[in-house]
Amino acid sequence: MKNLGQHILAEFHNCDSEVLNNTELIEKLMINAADKSGATIVNSIFHTFNPWGVSGAVVITESHLTIHTWPEFGYAAVDVFTCGEDVDAWVGFKVLQEGLKSDRYTTVLIKRGIVNHDQVIPGFVMRPEVREFEAEYA
Amino acid sequence: MKNLGQHILAEFHNCDSEVLNNTELIEKLMINAADKSGATIVNSIFHTFNPWGVSGAVVITESHLTIHTWPEFGYAAVDVFTCGEDVDAWVGFKVLQEGLKSDRYTTVLIKRGIVNHDQVIPGFVMRPEVREFEAEYA
Repeated sequence: MKNLGQHILAEFHNCDSEVLNNTELIEKLMINAADKSGATIVNSIFHTFNPWGVSGAVVITESHLTIHTWPEFGYAAVDVFTCGEDVDAWVGFKVLQEGLKSDRYTTVLIKRGIVNHDQVIPGFVMRPEVREFEAEYA
Repeated sequence: MKNLGQHILAEFHNCDSEVLNNTELIEKLMINAADKSGATIVNSIFHTFNPWGVSGAVVITESHLTIHTWPEFGYAAVDVFTCGEDVDAWVGFKVLQEGLKSDRYTTVLIKRGIVNHDQVIPGFVMRPEVREFEAEYA
């Protein structure tokens, strides 16, 4: 039994509220976080709320990054969900923590997709990039 | 202290692999899940992988839904992250569980954004839709 991916849920408190309310900057940060972590960006969408707050999603070939900001509380909810061995999600996390200027944060790491690699559905084969991911489920 | 949002992480196993590999159907399911749960859709992006697998994100005004599928394992990783009282994330979860035809699944519910509503950052005020969310952090 191995996990197909890993998912970091980050709670960023005490962020710079001006950053949290700047959609252009948030988008650049998220793209940079994906890029620096070694991910390949497929597409992204960002939205500015009225009167403030930003939501965004970056789909990467290795899963996704999302962000939702509450400038009124200096808070951002960030998810970094990655698959494969070529991406270091924690690098993306660090880019965002520094960019948002958060000095109080917590993280939860959840293993996603715990499957038996020997039980492939008939008609399909395991993709090489899945096989290469060596993370074991303890 | 209250939480701004709630986040369901669903592990759907034993899904219909043909559904998991049908991007058009997955997109319809995700849009329908957001809609039925009472969310307002802002934008969405979906991507088909070679040779198989689908990734997608639906940004809603109340946060997001994401999906990543591994047809070769009959598995999908789904996230339903919502804010406010007008959205029932579990309705969206049910739409997806039935649509993916998953008969083995687990869920984790994580409270996101545990903040003190009395500590609003100067220059901002709490948005009405935040105030209306009554969920208490136990």
